[in-house]
Amino acid sequence: MTKQDRAVRTRLALIRSAAGQFEARGYVQASLAEISAGAGVSSGALHFHFANKAAVAEAVEHAAARALRRAAARGRDGDGCALQRLVDVTHQVARLLCADSVVRAGLRLNAEAAAGRVRDLRREWRECVDDLLAEAERQGELAAGVPPHRTGAVVLAATTGIEVLAREDHGWLARPSLTDLWQLLLPSLAAPHLAGALDPAGTRPGHVDADHAETGLSLANTL
Amino acid sequence: MTKQDRAVRTRLALIRSAAGQFEARGYVQASLAEISAGAGVSSGALHFHFANKAAVAEAVEHAAARALRRAAARGRDGDGCALQRLVDVTHQVARLLCADSVVRAGLRLNAEAAAGRVRDLRREWRECVDDLLAEAERQGELAAGVPPHRTGAVVLAATTGIEVLAREDHGWLARPSLTDLWQLLLPSLAAPHLAGALDPAGTRPGHVDADHAETGLSLANTL
Repeated sequence: MTKQDRAVRTRLALIRSAAGQFEARGYVQASLAEISAGAGVSSGALHFHFANKAAVAEAVEHAAARALRRAAARGRDGDGCALQRLVDVTHQVARLLCADSVVRAGLRLNAEAAAGRVRDLRREWRECVDDLLAEAERQGELAAGVPPHRTGAVVLAATTGIEVLAREDHGWLARPSLTDLWQLLLPSLAAPHLAGALDPAGTRPGHVDADHAETGLSLANTL
Repeated sequence: MTKQDRAVRTRLALIRSAAGQFEARGYVQASLAEISAGAGVSSGALHFHFANKAAVAEAVEHAAARALRRAAARGRDGDGCALQRLVDVTHQVARLLCADSVVRAGLRLNAEAAAGRVRDLRREWRECVDDLLAEAERQGELAAGVPPHRTGAVVLAATTGIEVLAREDHGWLARPSLTDLWQLLLPSLAAPHLAGALDPAGTRPGHVDADHAETGLSLANTL
């Protein structure tokens, strides 16, 4: 392994260790000593990569943002029924959160930071949801009288609630919660010709390992 | 005003000031000096009522719990259609949160405290939702194939999301968010004979002032 490879691996290990600490103890309680110990490196090695705790948190948040944007883009830019892609992208994001502590910790750090930040992942998620609902409306996939923007607010509220509840109990990210949500929402949302054609459990099988590998890749890309 | 009345008023003023500080700056950043200044009393007066910041937070949380339990009990113990009472109680809790910073701050302090606490307001809310859905099932108000417990999880997720999003933007607690949610959920939830008979906007007109006065009362009762 070259010196550069080792540096990349150390940085990744520090980001993963920090995510675990932030998730378990919160940003304020997390200590740099435990982050470096968790990554199996000296505190000198930590300080070679990161000036302080805020810099480690920024790296965790940045990695999470990349992974989440990638998952959202896959859903948004696909083809076929937009309403089904909306269902699918919620399941994909939940799988990503379920599989990867860096994504969970980074999303939480972002949400807890003061308002008015440049990078607002909830706002980006809302845009992804709204884009897919607007596309569904253009394609005649929505039932009469369903306002896309107000429906986007309901989807944002429900998915935000699942993410927040999952901080205490990861079971909320498992497939049934989202499937139950879509099972109740889709009959009101979908145009009659789509009745029965949409799958509330999502149409793309879970690729937790692939998602996880991709997050690793996106982490490497942040270096 | 008797000496005792003055003490009651000072304690209430401190609880309101603390709630404002916790809401605006978070528990960690809030300072006792600003809490006493906000209540218009000396720091000596604050320490007469509360040993430390944790004790003020406990009083805020306790007051919020009483007000929320009262609102939930009003919904749970009413009569008539249980599904409509579930819709109504969500609107009542939202109005309470909208009107009263003590309830907002107390609920948030409770949610952010470590897991495994004796007083878990989200768990109590889930029980209220589940009780009303179970009653709705017993009364034949649910559509065939709607599992009450899994539906309760969806309602908990959506209402938790609204509460969390409202921390940044109180507009989430205004009536349309919940009305939109119920407008989408009720057609799937309700038995066919109730179609059109349920009001997603709630059947009890808002009594924000009354709710607010009651919270004041419940605060006084905590003394």
